[in-house]
Amino acid sequence: MQARRLKYAMIGGAKGSFIGPVHRMAIRLDDLADLEAGCFSRNADDNLAAARACAVADSRVYSDWASLIEAEKSRIDFVAVCTPNDSHYAITKAALEAGLDVMCEKPLSMTLEEAKELKAIATERGCVLAIPFTYSGFPMVKLARDLVRKGEIGEICKIVLEYQQGSFRKIDFTKPLDKRNTWKMDPARSGASCVVADIGVHGFHLIEYVTGLKVQSLLADLSSFAPGNALDDDASILMRLAKKDGGAITAKASMVVSKVATGEENGVRLRVYGEKASLFWNQESPNYLSVKYPFEAERIYKRNAPYVKEISEAATRSSRIPAGHHEGFIEGFANIYSEFCAAVRARRNAGGIVREFDYPGAEDGERTMRFVEAALKSNREECVYVSMVS
Amino acid sequence: MQARRLKYAMIGGAKGSFIGPVHRMAIRLDDLADLEAGCFSRNADDNLAAARACAVADSRVYSDWASLIEAEKSRIDFVAVCTPNDSHYAITKAALEAGLDVMCEKPLSMTLEEAKELKAIATERGCVLAIPFTYSGFPMVKLARDLVRKGEIGEICKIVLEYQQGSFRKIDFTKPLDKRNTWKMDPARSGASCVVADIGVHGFHLIEYVTGLKVQSLLADLSSFAPGNALDDDASILMRLAKKDGGAITAKASMVVSKVATGEENGVRLRVYGEKASLFWNQESPNYLSVKYPFEAERIYKRNAPYVKEISEAATRSSRIPAGHHEGFIEGFANIYSEFCAAVRARRNAGGIVREFDYPGAEDGERTMRFVEAALKSNREECVYVSMVS
Amino acid sequence: MQARRLKYAMIGGAKGSFIGPVHRMAIRLDDLADLEAGCFSRNADDNLAAARACAVADSRVYSDWASLIEAEKSRIDFVAVCTPNDSHYAITKAALEAGLDVMCEKPLSMTLEEAKELKAIATERGCVLAIPFTYSGFPMVKLARDLVRKGEIGEICKIVLEYQQGSFRKIDFTKPLDKRNTWKMDPARSGASCVVADIGVHGFHLIEYVTGLKVQSLLADLSSFAPGNALDDDASILMRLAKKDGGAITAKASMVVSKVATGEENGVRLRVYGEKASLFWNQESPNYLSVKYPFEAERIYKRNAPYVKEISEAATRSSRIPAGHHEGFIEGFANIYSEFCAAVRARRNAGGIVREFDYPGAEDGERTMRFVEAALKSNREECVYVSMVS
Amino acid sequence: MQARRLKYAMIGGAKGSFIGPVHRMAIRLDDLADLEAGCFSRNADDNLAAARACAVADSRVYSDWASLIEAEKSRIDFVAVCTPNDSHYAITKAALEAGLDVMCEKPLSMTLEEAKELKAIATERGCVLAIPFTYSGFPMVKLARDLVRKGEIGEICKIVLEYQQGSFRKIDFTKPLDKRNTWKMDPARSGASCVVADIGVHGFHLIEYVTGLKVQSLLADLSSFAPGNALDDDASILMRLAKKDGGAITAKASMVVSKVATGEENGVRLRVYGEKASLFWNQESPNYLSVKYPFEAERIYKRNAPYVKEISEAATRSSRIPAGHHEGFIEGFANIYSEFCAAVRARRNAGGIVREFDYPGAEDGERTMRFVEAALKSNREECVYVSMVS
Repeated sequence: MQARRLKYAMIGGAKGSFIGPVHRMAIRLDDLADLEAGCFSRNADDNLAAARACAVADSRVYSDWASLIEAEKSRIDFVAVCTPNDSHYAITKAALEAGLDVMCEKPLSMTLEEAKELKAIATERGCVLAIPFTYSGFPMVKLARDLVRKGEIGEICKIVLEYQQGSFRKIDFTKPLDKRNTWKMDPARSGASCVVADIGVHGFHLIEYVTGLKVQSLLADLSSFAPGNALDDDASILMRLAKKDGGAITAKASMVVSKVATGEENGVRLRVYGEKASLFWNQESPNYLSVKYPFEAERIYKRNAPYVKEISEAATRSSRIPAGHHEGFIEGFANIYSEFCAAVRARRNAGGIVREFDYPGAEDGERTMRFVEAALKSNREECVYVSMVS
Repeated sequence: MQARRLKYAMIGGAKGSFIGPVHRMAIRLDDLADLEAGCFSRNADDNLAAARACAVADSRVYSDWASLIEAEKSRIDFVAVCTPNDSHYAITKAALEAGLDVMCEKPLSMTLEEAKELKAIATERGCVLAIPFTYSGFPMVKLARDLVRKGEIGEICKIVLEYQQGSFRKIDFTKPLDKRNTWKMDPARSGASCVVADIGVHGFHLIEYVTGLKVQSLLADLSSFAPGNALDDDASILMRLAKKDGGAITAKASMVVSKVATGEENGVRLRVYGEKASLFWNQESPNYLSVKYPFEAERIYKRNAPYVKEISEAATRSSRIPAGHHEGFIEGFANIYSEFCAAVRARRNAGGIVREFDYPGAEDGERTMRFVEAALKSNREECVYVSMVS
Repeated sequence: MQARRLKYAMIGGAKGSFIGPVHRMAIRLDDLADLEAGCFSRNADDNLAAARACAVADSRVYSDWASLIEAEKSRIDFVAVCTPNDSHYAITKAALEAGLDVMCEKPLSMTLEEAKELKAIATERGCVLAIPFTYSGFPMVKLARDLVRKGEIGEICKIVLEYQQGSFRKIDFTKPLDKRNTWKMDPARSGASCVVADIGVHGFHLIEYVTGLKVQSLLADLSSFAPGNALDDDASILMRLAKKDGGAITAKASMVVSKVATGEENGVRLRVYGEKASLFWNQESPNYLSVKYPFEAERIYKRNAPYVKEISEAATRSSRIPAGHHEGFIEGFANIYSEFCAAVRARRNAGGIVREFDYPGAEDGERTMRFVEAALKSNREECVYVSMVS
Repeated sequence: MQARRLKYAMIGGAKGSFIGPVHRMAIRLDDLADLEAGCFSRNADDNLAAARACAVADSRVYSDWASLIEAEKSRIDFVAVCTPNDSHYAITKAALEAGLDVMCEKPLSMTLEEAKELKAIATERGCVLAIPFTYSGFPMVKLARDLVRKGEIGEICKIVLEYQQGSFRKIDFTKPLDKRNTWKMDPARSGASCVVADIGVHGFHLIEYVTGLKVQSLLADLSSFAPGNALDDDASILMRLAKKDGGAITAKASMVVSKVATGEENGVRLRVYGEKASLFWNQESPNYLSVKYPFEAERIYKRNAPYVKEISEAATRSSRIPAGHHEGFIEGFANIYSEFCAAVRARRNAGGIVREFDYPGAEDGERTMRFVEAALKSNREECVYVSMVS
């Protein structure tokens, strides 16, 4: 028997959007759901153009997201929210309250309070709420997590995470700015943070995902190097981690995230040091994972190689093609959607949320917003450690 | 106005197939066409299972490909042929004669004569016939070609191409062989060549695609190292190239292709040396292209970076996401399909084949079969140079 | 006319020493000086064995360093001090006071006060005092510095420095410890700091050397992860830099140094981000320097390539063999000695210290001790920023 | 008791020589011998200048090599021959006949006959004759050889060797050529071959050294791409190998060597494929060796890491400093000299040649000249396989 195909609507994601098309490609890659309705842009022409490019019927294109949710709530399974940060909360809240499952872009909200509220609503309604912390969808990141879980690297003491982008160095600040590229510098659209909220959250999530540890406190030194930027565009963050929330500190982390790292494209580099071995993953060479030992040769694991299967079912399941044939960002994104859609199907069948799926959910949405607020607070308080414990 | 969506059928590609799913994912990624009919396997259960997994209606599943072509020829636009080598010719011939466009897996046929015939039929019928020489779909390969075209590396004198796989080292030859993995060693299914026909053709096509040169003669030393293998599984091939067929030799190439290169996954490495600079591309790090100069620092070009656009419209057009976010094999494959589908649409509108599209076509199918036969002949004749000139 | 050959004595550097042989090899490589006397070990057998292995006459082997200085001060030009940290100050002081030039291993002393005193003595006596901050001797580091000086990367805003070693993970703490490997954990021999004083100083010096900036304040979070270690073996350090001491902060740095970074050997990685471009150097691939731009391909500079000459006379002068033929650690060390010996010769001819030579001197010795003390203070004060301004 | 220090003379190696200074630095690095006499150049000024720079007494500088050998034969232990190819034979012959040991630059001679004669003389006189096939002195090459010997990669079937230089692309052929850079293109100085004799011999030696196999026949396609070059500057060579001379063919090799590989510096890359695993070594990253397996993660071995010791005593013995601190070309060269000097000492003590030392000797000199002549013959005979069996 053929499974009922899922149906979804997209909000945001018209011309000029990077992430909207990624959501659509990721969903199509594995044939997870059909895009049936949309409110792609406040600009009517852009909205219609996007709809037609996606083969969405004109009758199901909406000029505002509230109308979309009202009209489509019984016809679709989930909403993909691809708008700027300032509307994440309202859209997600409305969609959840309409009983829809939601994939909402990061950051989940403008404030921690909003994130808590969204988590509460999702829990209460039994809805699936996911946030695409993409890097946790990469097979070699799942392998890293499973190597940690199996004790291969021993107790973790140190984590080094870089997320370096040079995007703000590609902007000509001497000319009028194109809002599509620079809304992230606008507090009204981006929120109280730029780089921490935009990519710092990826780094934070990646650390907790791979290590299984929980950040207990952090210290942040934020900078604004881009001309005229009122928000943070560079951050150095130190963290202390425990095995569980409120537990004793067993590890420390150093994180650097930047949008002014000239010449970098998307330099996500994660190093995890354990007592027995260490892990290194570089998003710009995503199909490899390096494991280094004191008394053995360094090992380079390759995506979907036979030996990966024995260590990580998740890494193997999230691979499509043999080792040596590279998968990349869209495939990693699709792995988030694949787990999300499985959860959506499960709830539709079972009537309740199922949390054993491997996607970043409401809890991660809340924790990352807690991280953002803690970083801002530490920076305001002249770089002291501030608590992340709830 | 929304373009009419293309429709296609797949022959081959059931459980155990590597390439069938790749075709389907590549097509879906860019929403190029809908899979509407199929004859996925001679095994009825596998056939039906594949169809259902692909949401093909039971009524459009066929137990033999001839019936599919007959029944579907007026309902679909093209056929994707994903069967073993021995049926490529017959299926492609029948599909072309039915007026269908065809994407046929390499090698196009078992013999050069068959390839010539298919090219003639495609030309006569005005059909689009393409062969997925995947690596020519990678953006950085297109950039390499365009750097050559623009004279950036000067006159080419030497090419070094490796295509190293260790797949035959993963087979346990002490046990009964699984035909799904080992049919390529069976002359009845694979033809007179194994490694040259299977991956040598990729290497050959890549060289001609990037350099724009034409191989005039070649010398091949073939080996069979896998236990009990009657066909070639390792080859060293020297080639002499000219600017046009029949022209003076201006460059030489050394190619190594293997299926017994233990530990290699899909090691496609291309080096092109010109008078002014040289190029290096490695499929296992596909988003980068290295250019080396005598008197300047080596340059590493990155997929979809701003400076790529000025050099290669093709490289930019075949990218989906920003530099730093990796694209891989499926995306490269999708680029072949994207050009192919554009050609299919063009012919459906215009009533004639359009050859300015950038996909490997009937001519490449013929040349690669000429290459296979020349390699076999050279090896039989104790490794002398044999002509590739038609 | 043949230059008078320099003559030197070594203190420390017997069996089990890593750095003693490096000093000797570095000096021999470029034929800079002859080793004529030594006090290699307090152990008489080891002392004599080392002397004979180095062709030092038995009559010029001393059982204590004070006797050596007294007896040799008029026969030699300089002393190489290769002992553990706790004797650096006393030996260097005595040697300087005897009018000898000194190459003293880092850290220069146990305290900042001692370092200041040594600097004062060297200045007063007109002696050459150098500390082998080896990485500043590598040609590609000199190229990096000169690219910065020439404005190639624009105003610097961010520096990321890792110095990761896993050496303490190679120690079996369940057995009695070999003091030769573990004296760095012993406060009596190592001083108040282990990792910061041992390798943090390298990182600090490298940052100031390459960027030309001065660290104004720093914040340090130190850890002791190795079993039973009373001193720091892992550190995360944030720094704020200005163009001159006391100037306005224009850049920030994040540094990670560790001796418990399991599996790392000597992972010195420096990233410098400027407004116009960024630099990356990795000591484990020392003959390359990467420069990344927003709108141009990444460039990989190679040691002693023709284009390096135009940018950095220092990088070219400190290379011995053509690009492509690698030089490594000993060669980098020899470059420090080469500049030091040139200064020694100059002073012997001119009667006064000459400071245009490119070696780390007394000022660097003082600054690095200031850095160590600031890091310890910040850590004691719960990780607040503390001033580095003198 | 202190060993008597060896004494040597150098012939060739004045201003403009790349390799002369390398010999001298390599010898000094490990304090192996003292340079006491020399005939560095036919140009009297250059000769004297070189001597003084090396601290050779004016009284021991000779205007011709014959006088040097005559005058110094009882005062020195060995001669380092660093002249162009055309004088290797005569100098080496005279030195051996004078009872001196000889380190002679490659190629050993202009013809195979000469090489045979030199081998015979060395054998008869009991002299140590070595040729610095440098790459066999690199620790990771020794590790590769020992991994093969221990059966770690199983029976070898394929070898791929590249030695790519772009040196001839740095010459401005529109201007009068500087003989110091271009004598290798002059048949009178270089002999009948340029690239094969100059660097092809390194590749050939490296293959036989690492694999322990013997080349039985080869096929060569030579080209002259540099303007006006009468000799080969690019070669593609196929080889067939057996376990012993005259044995059955068990492996094949493909070699590419070039001096017109634009942008390459010294690209020596060796891949050895066995039944069980494969090896990859790249001279431009010389402190690493990669081993790839079908069913295990790739392993990266690092020079002088603890696990290397268990596999290869030779790799460990030929390392000076810990893993992570790089050694390069001079150190590799020094390892050749270290073994050579040990043999020289042994013979001086024992009165007879000792061949268990690990340096390339007369036999390698002969084999590499056989290789050169076979390559030239194959190329003349339109690229047929020609025998290497003596």
